[in-house]
Amino acid sequence: MAVYTDVGDDELAQFIDTYGIGPVVSFKGIAEGVENSNYLLKTATGTYILTLYEKRVDAADLPFFLGLMEHLAERGISCPLPLKSTSGQAIGQLAGRPAAIVTFLEGIWHRHPTAVHTKALGAALARFHLAGADFAIPRANALGPAGWRPLFERCAMRANEVAPRLAEEIAGELDFFDRTWPVGLPAGVIHADLFPDNVFFLGDQLSGLIDFYFACNDMLVYDLGICLNSWCFEPDGSYNYTKGRAMLAAYDAVRPLSAEEWQALPLLCRGSALRFLLTRLYDWLNVPPGALVRPKDPLEYRVKLAFHRTIRSARDYGVDFGAGRE
Amino acid sequence: MAVYTDVGDDELAQFIDTYGIGPVVSFKGIAEGVENSNYLLKTATGTYILTLYEKRVDAADLPFFLGLMEHLAERGISCPLPLKSTSGQAIGQLAGRPAAIVTFLEGIWHRHPTAVHTKALGAALARFHLAGADFAIPRANALGPAGWRPLFERCAMRANEVAPRLAEEIAGELDFFDRTWPVGLPAGVIHADLFPDNVFFLGDQLSGLIDFYFACNDMLVYDLGICLNSWCFEPDGSYNYTKGRAMLAAYDAVRPLSAEEWQALPLLCRGSALRFLLTRLYDWLNVPPGALVRPKDPLEYRVKLAFHRTIRSARDYGVDFGAGRE
Repeated sequence: MAVYTDVGDDELAQFIDTYGIGPVVSFKGIAEGVENSNYLLKTATGTYILTLYEKRVDAADLPFFLGLMEHLAERGISCPLPLKSTSGQAIGQLAGRPAAIVTFLEGIWHRHPTAVHTKALGAALARFHLAGADFAIPRANALGPAGWRPLFERCAMRANEVAPRLAEEIAGELDFFDRTWPVGLPAGVIHADLFPDNVFFLGDQLSGLIDFYFACNDMLVYDLGICLNSWCFEPDGSYNYTKGRAMLAAYDAVRPLSAEEWQALPLLCRGSALRFLLTRLYDWLNVPPGALVRPKDPLEYRVKLAFHRTIRSARDYGVDFGAGRE
Repeated sequence: MAVYTDVGDDELAQFIDTYGIGPVVSFKGIAEGVENSNYLLKTATGTYILTLYEKRVDAADLPFFLGLMEHLAERGISCPLPLKSTSGQAIGQLAGRPAAIVTFLEGIWHRHPTAVHTKALGAALARFHLAGADFAIPRANALGPAGWRPLFERCAMRANEVAPRLAEEIAGELDFFDRTWPVGLPAGVIHADLFPDNVFFLGDQLSGLIDFYFACNDMLVYDLGICLNSWCFEPDGSYNYTKGRAMLAAYDAVRPLSAEEWQALPLLCRGSALRFLLTRLYDWLNVPPGALVRPKDPLEYRVKLAFHRTIRSARDYGVDFGAGRE
């Protein structure tokens, strides 16, 4: 949960005034989001989300993030649409930080998604990938394999405080991926953080996607691996074949995966598990004093990583359709 | 900021269903409130606040708190109105905790209130006191003088870690109040925590009062002292005579203070400063592991306490009207 910045009355009123959306009627910090400060804003004209970009977000990336939301919304993807100020700017300045206002998206996220939800998610992810194909601004994945080793080096010495032999296991994985990471697979804009809390539903209908602040260019199947890890495992660490099959089939029905992509899926699931294991491990060992966010358990992703090491082909995820059955 | 409890999808839907307010359209944790978990709830029929009462609130007090809001709303005080379930209950059960839904109040709270706002606050506090006069349920002030010494005994040993000679100063104040605490002044329901973040404004118009979870029976002037301390001092610790005079005059215009109340005002301002010094000191020294709330600075109230010790009569607060000028 996160509200890092206190906003003064006058500066808020002045900022809102530049958007021509009427005077502020309500303004409440939201206990969601880790990277930024988010506020629910009501004005005379409607409900919005105001985001202050804190220092973990590079201001140079904001045209990518906000441009992407606009690009996606124009192509029929339900996501927050950045408002433009009366002078045409989507990015302003408030309380000494870059700030933006986006439209409010109805829906709630599911704490315990079922196969109905993973199916909807699979189709939405594929549509997101198709809609992002012609987005012009590039952004490298700072948390791809090239970023893993430097991140690990900053926490390797203390990794075994978290669990025995964790450092050795991660070092082995890094060596493995140095040799095996695929090239040449279909790439484009990926969300890179499409966990259940970033996907809204009204009843069982998916109502929209949020939080594009890890989006970047990378292999599309890698994004599918991130979703498989975050949607298709049970709290006890076991893989749920029904949820996984529903997600993969729904994705494949909208954007059919090539034989090469199916073949790479286990490796990319394993890689995305390592990515979240590493970033969570780093955050676990580096909780800043006065932190308002509880760090997430890195070991959840060690269990998932171990599972993917046992997978020989996409069939082992329950796939019996498309190129995956081959 | 506070959201202590994660609410499951199904239990939320079932709970909301008992109120007949339509299906959930949005549900977001709010980064406000220290004692409870608060969520902004949108349904097909409107916007509401859902509160889960965490263990710091005694469930036996809920009929007082929710009954008071209903009582006040019926008497024209703008405050959240508890909804009743279709079986007529204001208090339900959600995620293993007592829970209630109240109406959403428009407005924002002012981080830097001016004399315009302290004037509006003074009048609203007086109207609140008048409206509460015939509320039938009693609730003792657990944080009145009888509660101060036990609280101090639980942190006296470590008080001087926070500031030199703080323990001796507090002990002296407790002895002083044992001898001087007034009796027989007009009493009734007080809010007891009417800080700026609990008072909403639309522009400069006061739009409502929230957070009645410290309300209790006590001397009405004590409540005025709490407001003087929380609204009429500058960040540098100096008393703002313009804000104080505006608040006291506006209160007196709605509910004229007796000569005895004016006379007791400095003592009750000093007592209320001690109350917040003590509770903040306790919280400062007892931050639970994984706390999501930053403790507030106790020494802010040591400065206010010292100021009130210099006051000889209400005139020293800038009062030149009503019985206060005598």
